[in-house]
Amino acid sequence: MASSQTIRVNLAERSYDILIGSGTLDVFPQFMADRNSSTHVVIITDSNVDDLYADALGDSLTEQGYEVQMMVVDAGEESKSADAAIDLWETMLAEGADRGSVVAAVGGGVVGDLAGFVAATFARGLAFVQVPTTLLAQVDSSVGGKVGINLSEAKNMVGAFWQPMGVLVDVNVLGTLPAKEFAAGMAEVVKYGVIMDLDFFEYLEQNVDGINARDPEVMQKVVERCCQLKAEVVEADEREESGRRAILNYGHTFAHAFEAATEYGQLLHGEAVSMGMVCESRLAERIGLIDAAATERQVKLLEALSLPITPPELDPEEVYRLMWHDKKVADGKINFVLPTKIGETTLTSDVKSRDVLAVLEG
Amino acid sequence: MASSQTIRVNLAERSYDILIGSGTLDVFPQFMADRNSSTHVVIITDSNVDDLYADALGDSLTEQGYEVQMMVVDAGEESKSADAAIDLWETMLAEGADRGSVVAAVGGGVVGDLAGFVAATFARGLAFVQVPTTLLAQVDSSVGGKVGINLSEAKNMVGAFWQPMGVLVDVNVLGTLPAKEFAAGMAEVVKYGVIMDLDFFEYLEQNVDGINARDPEVMQKVVERCCQLKAEVVEADEREESGRRAILNYGHTFAHAFEAATEYGQLLHGEAVSMGMVCESRLAERIGLIDAAATERQVKLLEALSLPITPPELDPEEVYRLMWHDKKVADGKINFVLPTKIGETTLTSDVKSRDVLAVLEG
Ligand SMILES: NC(=O)c1ccc[n+]([C@@H]2O[C@H](COP(=O)([O-])OP(=O)(O)OC[C@H]3O[C@@H](n4cnc5c(N)ncnc54)[C@H](O)[C@@H]3O)[C@@H](O)[C@H]2O)c1
Ligand SMILES: NC(=O)c1ccc[n+]([C@@H]2O[C@H](COP(=O)([O-])OP(=O)(O)OC[C@H]3O[C@@H](n4cnc5c(N)ncnc54)[C@H](O)[C@@H]3O)[C@@H](O)[C@H]2O)c1
Ligand SMILES: [Zn+2]
Ligand SMILES: [Zn+2]
Repeated sequence: MASSQTIRVNLAERSYDILIGSGTLDVFPQFMADRNSSTHVVIITDSNVDDLYADALGDSLTEQGYEVQMMVVDAGEESKSADAAIDLWETMLAEGADRGSVVAAVGGGVVGDLAGFVAATFARGLAFVQVPTTLLAQVDSSVGGKVGINLSEAKNMVGAFWQPMGVLVDVNVLGTLPAKEFAAGMAEVVKYGVIMDLDFFEYLEQNVDGINARDPEVMQKVVERCCQLKAEVVEADEREESGRRAILNYGHTFAHAFEAATEYGQLLHGEAVSMGMVCESRLAERIGLIDAAATERQVKLLEALSLPITPPELDPEEVYRLMWHDKKVADGKINFVLPTKIGETTLTSDVKSRDVLAVLEG
Repeated sequence: MASSQTIRVNLAERSYDILIGSGTLDVFPQFMADRNSSTHVVIITDSNVDDLYADALGDSLTEQGYEVQMMVVDAGEESKSADAAIDLWETMLAEGADRGSVVAAVGGGVVGDLAGFVAATFARGLAFVQVPTTLLAQVDSSVGGKVGINLSEAKNMVGAFWQPMGVLVDVNVLGTLPAKEFAAGMAEVVKYGVIMDLDFFEYLEQNVDGINARDPEVMQKVVERCCQLKAEVVEADEREESGRRAILNYGHTFAHAFEAATEYGQLLHGEAVSMGMVCESRLAERIGLIDAAATERQVKLLEALSLPITPPELDPEEVYRLMWHDKKVADGKINFVLPTKIGETTLTSDVKSRDVLAVLEG
């Protein structure tokens, strides 16, 4: 393993480490052995990641004397369903999983959320490890303990807060990620810079080439900083109660409406977030919170990372209506997380519909 | 409300009160208002309890300005399923439940476990109130935070620890309980006496007539003491980690095997527990832990409460084999909770198969 760093997520007795490096998959058996004495491991992965990484990880455990149960779901968001959860529960039971088993999620956010939900609920909760293999999962979904499944009419509607006992990140796996998926993950990366960390935003601006080449050294730095920032937010607001965690929704109020308006599928989540950040920064401009130069800096960086910044042709009134359907709408007001400069945000629900519509009209 | 008492369950920020009395259903709206400012309440009940109590409770909330969503599942264990959970999740979503809604379970253990699981997982966890209407639910399942559903091949295999924000017990509702259900609940009551409290066991012996008449004053005392004892155990071992909670399994190792051998349905759980306690007390006799008089005292009390004490004709080898399938079997040993005298137990896995078989052979 070339190099690695450990980030601690401090959540009292639910604290855990994120080990980030290049080549870290090699230490998977040791990573497991350091955290739990169980010898029965259930690996949940998807049909793409199985051949690429999960199967080999399973073998490496088997060689160390573990009993390994491999469970492969179809790649794609459709697997984050109650039906898939039932299949996993039943199969685990049939193959002898019990209270002492450990679940390892090897894959992107879909696998992490689904496997985490299954881990949270099987036998009232199993120990759980994340091995995130998409950039989005490495910088976002694998950290923070939110796990869950979709209902047919609403994403992430059913779930739990269930912290892993460890997260193992190998940036080398980003090498096989489709270009669009990689770019989509970078939208969340840029988001951390805008909401919390000017220095990091500048680091991204200065390392666009290394990022686009998925240079392991650069990507390790990128993932490390994102995990640190997300860990800080999660430590301050583990169960999304104090409001602090809302900061992570920058770009997402518009993004969720774009995803809903295109009926999920046309846009990757990260692509929608990229467009959403530009829109919300423009909204912040309109109400005098930020200057146009700050928006332009975001646009420039996002474009350099091959991210779309202009939403598809959509009816502004329809998009606005969809914002009201988002489950984060509280007390009849839409809450926006808006930047006041690069590295700082404010929360506001005091936004006029005509400003939102004006932004949507472009 | 004639009289009532409050028992506090101390679990740090998850602490809550159990209000026990006769006529306490009258204070349901106040009980809710005292605990949560939400005005959207989802009442989950079953097809028997709906007409008897839940519908009226819903009306009493509506009168106080609450928005009430009534959801009625078929009475019976079959409703404690993943399919039922999915139905409830989807219906709640369709009718506008959100993070701020409160779930109230009005019914027996089936409704409490199912509604609790739905509350634990909808929008990653909703506030939850229990209004237990069977004796078993009042003295056992509504206290302690275990919620869950069955898989087709294993009971309670999927679930969570999810504490309610309050439990409201009205012993008057026991008046409409079928005789067999009432007696089954009394098996768990007797269990508390045997495992933890000689005085309480004696109180039961002295009040058999009042109990059988379901006298509200006697039943209030009975439920209070059971809730106190269960609360003590749960406080010491909320998530079933230290082993303390295992004490509640007295009678249950045999009982689960009897239930499995009769394919669930022939025996009520409490009936199986009654037989199981007698068997396990006899097992304790065989290995010199307790004297025969203590077993006879249990037999006498259980019979006075109309509980069966002799298992149905079953193949002892088969029953013994089924004990090994119980999910509580750890490290290849069956753990027994055995009484050393009335009011005291010990945990042992050092039991010879021939002693178990001898007990089963009668
Ligand atoms: N829990 C959270 O806090 C949180 C946060 C953000 C997003 N999410 C969820 O994450 C999900 C999206 O995650 P995602 O973007 O990782 O999608 P994903 O899991 O569907 O992965 C995207 C695609 O990449 C493939 N893939 C994964 N790793 C690969 C690799 N190393 N090489 C090649 N292909 C690979 C997958 O098979 C899939 O086809 C959504 O369901 C979203 O709701 C959760
Ligand atoms: N969570 C726990 O800690 C825990 C503990 C013990 C048992 N349980 C679970 O509890 C369940 C059994 O609970 P149960 O025995 O209450 O069964 P139940 O909920 O099925 O109720 C038994 C019957 O009584 C009816 N009923 C309920 N209240 C009534 C009333 N006041 N008057 C007339 N009829 C009424 C019900 O409709 C049902 O037909 C099992 O699924 C078991 O696994 C859970
Ligand atoms: Zn996002
Ligand atoms: Zn029981």
